Amino acid sequence: MSDVLIVGAGLLGTSLGLALSPSRRVALHDTSPAHLATAVAMGAGHAWDGRTQADIVLLAVPPAAIAHELLRLRRLDLGKTYTHIGSVQSQVQREVESRIGHAPDMLGCHPMAGRETTGPAGASADLFSGRRWAVCPWAGTSDHAVDAVIDLARACRAEPVLLGAVAHDEAVALSSHLPHLTSALLAGLLVEATDEALALAGPGLTDMTRLAGGDPALWREILTINRQHVADVAHALGTQLTAASQLIASGDAVAVSDLLERGRRGRARIPGKHGRRDVGFERVTVVLRDAPGELARLLGAAAAAAINIEDVRVEHAVGEQTGWVGLWVAAADRPRLGNALESAGWSLGGA
Amino acid sequence: MSDVLIVGAGLLGTSLGLALSPSRRVALHDTSPAHLATAVAMGAGHAWDGRTQADIVLLAVPPAAIAHELLRLRRLDLGKTYTHIGSVQSQVQREVESRIGHAPDMLGCHPMAGRETTGPAGASADLFSGRRWAVCPWAGTSDHAVDAVIDLARACRAEPVLLGAVAHDEAVALSSHLPHLTSALLAGLLVEATDEALALAGPGLTDMTRLAGGDPALWREILTINRQHVADVAHALGTQLTAASQLIASGDAVAVSDLLERGRRGRARIPGKHGRRDVGFERVTVVLRDAPGELARLLGAAAAAAINIEDVRVEHAVGEQTGWVGLWVAAADRPRLGNALESAGWSLGGA
Repeated sequence: MSDVLIVGAGLLGTSLGLALSPSRRVALHDTSPAHLATAVAMGAGHAWDGRTQADIVLLAVPPAAIAHELLRLRRLDLGKTYTHIGSVQSQVQREVESRIGHAPDMLGCHPMAGRETTGPAGASADLFSGRRWAVCPWAGTSDHAVDAVIDLARACRAEPVLLGAVAHDEAVALSSHLPHLTSALLAGLLVEATDEALALAGPGLTDMTRLAGGDPALWREILTINRQHVADVAHALGTQLTAASQLIASGDAVAVSDLLERGRRGRARIPGKHGRRDVGFERVTVVLRDAPGELARLLGAAAAAAINIEDVRVEHAVGEQTGWVGLWVAAADRPRLGNALESAGWSLGGA
Repeated sequence: MSDVLIVGAGLLGTSLGLALSPSRRVALHDTSPAHLATAVAMGAGHAWDGRTQADIVLLAVPPAAIAHELLRLRRLDLGKTYTHIGSVQSQVQREVESRIGHAPDMLGCHPMAGRETTGPAGASADLFSGRRWAVCPWAGTSDHAVDAVIDLARACRAEPVLLGAVAHDEAVALSSHLPHLTSALLAGLLVEATDEALALAGPGLTDMTRLAGGDPALWREILTINRQHVADVAHALGTQLTAASQLIASGDAVAVSDLLERGRRGRARIPGKHGRRDVGFERVTVVLRDAPGELARLLGAAAAAAINIEDVRVEHAVGEQTGWVGLWVAAADRPRLGNALESAGWSLGGA
């Protein structure tokens, strides 16, 4: 008997194994012997023998394979609780319940940990540390199964957030899938832009099109599986842009003010550091040479003043070997940081 | 006779004075005696006596005041060339030309330097260094006047980009005003979102709503003055979102792939560091304690390996005193940086 059987030793499955191994007996399985060998060699668990049962069977396989694998493993009676970590939740629940009805031993979950790399070699025991982890009970899931998955999330040092599969899919449609789609469409407008227009691009455009650089195959799958919720929010934002276009064309400054103020209110609702709301850190901009060690030297100067840097952004100048660094600090620390850096010989830029 | 008369000693006017003073005789004027005194004390130039002429009269005043002030100062015959640095260009040109016809001694320009603070105290001689600077000749502007403004931009160490006022306004509508509006509308959708949806927010949403935190009064003015161009691009993006919503709802994976690929192509057109295209730096993610000096220690480890860090992003964990830092480096440096940091005892995160 193992504590956990992880099926799928890719980036996420192997990271789960690494995070759980200190406190649980972890069995690992993957259809790729190379992935499995790498994950085992990294210390993510021992290779599953193909028959030993586990308290929890956890699937970390591609979205299209989840429902079929959940049903197959359950027929083999391999665990007490079955779960999966797919980034879209309700389709799996519908598929499985349509086959076997209510299943007290099954539920989905979704750790909010990104993935830019794939494969076990990029795995890390810290991948889930401090991340939120959606736990999504199904219609018939027992309390025991829910608690087992909550314990698993906590063992990975994540923060469990309990919500239904449909609520989860609605939430990520708004908070993750729509931002990605919007970034891609905005970036798509640049295909036909003039070189002059692109020459005037600033950091705002770069920020707003960063997500558009993501893996198209993965995102096609996510947007398509969560299609109804994504379509709803995309339609809502499209309607708002079209309406804003009319307000702006008509010169309705009051309505434009209202929508900008509404944006500020919405932004303020995003939970910030340590679960608190973003309290509006202030920026100090510093000019620096673009050379190895300059950034370390700058942050060393901030550290010498015992000021905690909350965020850093590097922006490069055009045509010369300089750049700017924006350092965000608590508002109260801003004057002290500016003085400390200027005393240390750094040149502060405007914005 | 001065070389430059700068009217408006706010953040930008004072920064211009600081950037130009080493090579030019700069006279400064402001209706606020306090602003003027601060700018003069900072070394941005000498206080204008109210009558001495200048080779270039440069207006750094609020958008609504520009056309009136240009006409007034020209009637007083105060300079050989008149220009302004408004963030929207064609309306000023239309207003002035409708009054005096073609003006060989006038043109607009627009340094691409952001402003998060206001007032002369935040000014910096380096504000324009390495930034692009749009130079926008009018219908009747002489070559002499254009050259004078190009020289001014170069004296501020900016890179001049020559284009017409309408082309400028179209360009910034797409590259700056639409990203801001989109960010505000996306953030506005969060006003009605559930707490659960917000709890699942990740760094993508934070990036995409960052601009929405900007000054509503300033942005209302910009969006309203550049209304026609902003309305056009907002309508284009609104239409695309609505169309994408239908494609996604219908499960058309090929069309979804196409729009994601188009986004990648558009993003790749944004000029990157030193005027080159963004060559796709790769990220190494590191787990670190949220304490003063940790970031400096981390970047010191990178500097010790003589690796140039191209960008830095800090992301905070929820509910505990840790965070992640993403370090972007040239693809070739990525394995070496990973090894150097792991040898130095840092824990690498997944994504």
